Amino acid sequence: MSLAEAGHDSEASLETVMQTLGRNAKAAMRTLSRAGEEQKNRALRMAADAIRAQAGDILEANERDVAAGRDRGLRASLLDRLALDRNRLGGVACGLEAIADLPDPVGSVMASWTRPNGLEISRVRTPLGVIGIIYESRPNVTADAGGICIKSGNAAILRGGSESLHSSSAIASCLCQGLEAAGLPASAVQLVPTRDRAAVGHMLTMPEWIDIIVPRGGRSLIERVQNESRIPVIAHLDGLCHVYLDRAADPDMARNIVLNAKMRRTSVCGAAETLLVDRAAASTLLPPVAAALTEVGCSLRGDAQARQLVPEMEPATEADWSTEYLDAILAVRLVDGIDGAIGHVNRYGSSHTDTIVTGDGAVAERFLDEVDSAIVLHNASTQYADGGEFGMGAEIGISTGRLHARGPVSVEQLTSFKYVVRGNGQTRP
Amino acid sequence: MSLAEAGHDSEASLETVMQTLGRNAKAAMRTLSRAGEEQKNRALRMAADAIRAQAGDILEANERDVAAGRDRGLRASLLDRLALDRNRLGGVACGLEAIADLPDPVGSVMASWTRPNGLEISRVRTPLGVIGIIYESRPNVTADAGGICIKSGNAAILRGGSESLHSSSAIASCLCQGLEAAGLPASAVQLVPTRDRAAVGHMLTMPEWIDIIVPRGGRSLIERVQNESRIPVIAHLDGLCHVYLDRAADPDMARNIVLNAKMRRTSVCGAAETLLVDRAAASTLLPPVAAALTEVGCSLRGDAQARQLVPEMEPATEADWSTEYLDAILAVRLVDGIDGAIGHVNRYGSSHTDTIVTGDGAVAERFLDEVDSAIVLHNASTQYADGGEFGMGAEIGISTGRLHARGPVSVEQLTSFKYVVRGNGQTRP
Repeated sequence: MSLAEAGHDSEASLETVMQTLGRNAKAAMRTLSRAGEEQKNRALRMAADAIRAQAGDILEANERDVAAGRDRGLRASLLDRLALDRNRLGGVACGLEAIADLPDPVGSVMASWTRPNGLEISRVRTPLGVIGIIYESRPNVTADAGGICIKSGNAAILRGGSESLHSSSAIASCLCQGLEAAGLPASAVQLVPTRDRAAVGHMLTMPEWIDIIVPRGGRSLIERVQNESRIPVIAHLDGLCHVYLDRAADPDMARNIVLNAKMRRTSVCGAAETLLVDRAAASTLLPPVAAALTEVGCSLRGDAQARQLVPEMEPATEADWSTEYLDAILAVRLVDGIDGAIGHVNRYGSSHTDTIVTGDGAVAERFLDEVDSAIVLHNASTQYADGGEFGMGAEIGISTGRLHARGPVSVEQLTSFKYVVRGNGQTRP
Repeated sequence: MSLAEAGHDSEASLETVMQTLGRNAKAAMRTLSRAGEEQKNRALRMAADAIRAQAGDILEANERDVAAGRDRGLRASLLDRLALDRNRLGGVACGLEAIADLPDPVGSVMASWTRPNGLEISRVRTPLGVIGIIYESRPNVTADAGGICIKSGNAAILRGGSESLHSSSAIASCLCQGLEAAGLPASAVQLVPTRDRAAVGHMLTMPEWIDIIVPRGGRSLIERVQNESRIPVIAHLDGLCHVYLDRAADPDMARNIVLNAKMRRTSVCGAAETLLVDRAAASTLLPPVAAALTEVGCSLRGDAQARQLVPEMEPATEADWSTEYLDAILAVRLVDGIDGAIGHVNRYGSSHTDTIVTGDGAVAERFLDEVDSAIVLHNASTQYADGGEFGMGAEIGISTGRLHARGPVSVEQLTSFKYVVRGNGQTRP
């Protein structure tokens, strides 16, 4: 904390701070990457214990952050994300223990084969290296992200939102205590110890120290990171998710899935934003769905043909097909069957999560095959887009990119691999 | 070819050319990504046929390239890479047929499981999208790279070295003919139709059209691409490969492996550049290895202690430990056993390919585990670092990065995946 309290005088000293973090991370990674499963799990459990034991200090640090945020006029929703209490902090500790319970991906043999010349080749999972995580003022992410990195054998450089610096420092300190108690280097998890926003720019341009950048936050953060980073980025950009009701959809299932996909939680990335309805069955399928949504407070924006069936809808504009509302608003459009649905999703979607409701297996398979999204579902809600729901445990986010990790990003997705070749003297002819 | 012949008047028109390539590639990718194995293989075989049928035209185009290159004073080694003859062209055609014979990765189920709520989840391989490949004046790469992209369902934008434009255009035309004959869009493989070097800059900044950049060439090309690209890069930077002779190495095996690793071909990325010898057995192991290397024309640069054993060696400087000679030169250093070897490789190596020669299984496992390289071998030559030798078929390169693809990059490494979720009406509580 001394660095954070002292601040720094110049760009040169920030550069020094960041370079030191990078160098420390790389060194710690060499040790952590070879640590066994038990040792890493011990670190995670000891960190959870430390969080419980030091709850008073953490909550006091959090109160300072929240008070400062309130003074600076932080929005209520951001203050809510920033605030911790005993209950939330207990959840943070349990989250670390849940990560300890996940299988360790490192060292697992992904494939192995023997060549005609007798060489035995295996592809073995390894950690990725040093992961830079940039997120908003949500102190719980400090524990989640740090914990996932520890489990996957990666060193972490964490840059939390500046409003959460006291809380995140207190939590990061518990992670470091856990690492040390397990005999691992404390610098395997380092929090950027300054509020200076220029620190992010340094992180994005240290490919010599950081192997991968994971931004977690709003669109402006992600876009800045994607534009400026000299390091590969794994990111979730938009969650513009669709529900398509096919002519062969069961009306009750259609209604339940739309209601859940839109309204279970409207602020999550897997929430549906656009409802597509097969023109051939729209007069049967759409009115009851619309009525159910309206009843629970969802406002609807329909195209001209949808509004002929449900005149209460506001008119949708072209912009609505590209809008991630993250609110109780749903765009509604009639389409020409499965071709129209696939065409719309691939044109306007964000390659995140899309679902089809239909009793027609062949039509479902076309949707699953041809919709180009990280997660495609048949007869299930888009709100299942979640690493936990997939059985993958804690996630660091859902990647909408196609490279390396697509969909939920958990410990396994934060690994690389190496080829291990065993011979008995082979030389290449 | 009209564009290439006509050139373009301004930066604005190059921008238009590149944007058009990008748009065409994205559109073609939508079709190619859903093409079945048979259709893609037909395209590859028809392209091979076209190359054989049009060999005269291709060789004539190549003669124009070679003549122009000679006029401009191109180095002999570059002219050799540029030049085609009937024999080499036959190899190019056979290469496409070999790619057709590889298994199709697209659509294969990588994993599947059922959740307690009944959701059936599978992880299914998909193409990556549009791949931009930037390479030197080697017309055979046009066929290799285009063929690997077709097989993996990816559209390709190929930018070959400007000296090879006529030859590469003639070969790319055969790929397009194959695609069309198989009912696939010809624009799935497009060659950048201009010698203007600014085209590369455009490719690197079109993330809206290109999903991944693969540079193939020398260090300056790779570094430029890594520095300028706004698109993720899969690249092979250096091949600074090591052979470590442990105290428990069999002397004959040690000599054979070192000779092969260094001298089989000195210009390949898997060629050894540094020999590390366990101090505890150096007086036995090193002199015969050095004598054998010297006999076949390899010059040696040793540290002080190695030169005490083999005084004929030139002295090595610190720079030698970081130099990829790609020539008949080998740096030689004594190290303190396995710890010294691992320390040296992880400090100076390029994370490419490294081998240990030892009869001690436990020591070998430490090397395989702790050396942080894409390929680690025990008792085998580093020159096995090759997709074909691994049984993966044609390769587009060997990645020294840790993200997405590490080691040989062939058709499987050019895929992404999606999660396919099948339900029966599940909604998330």
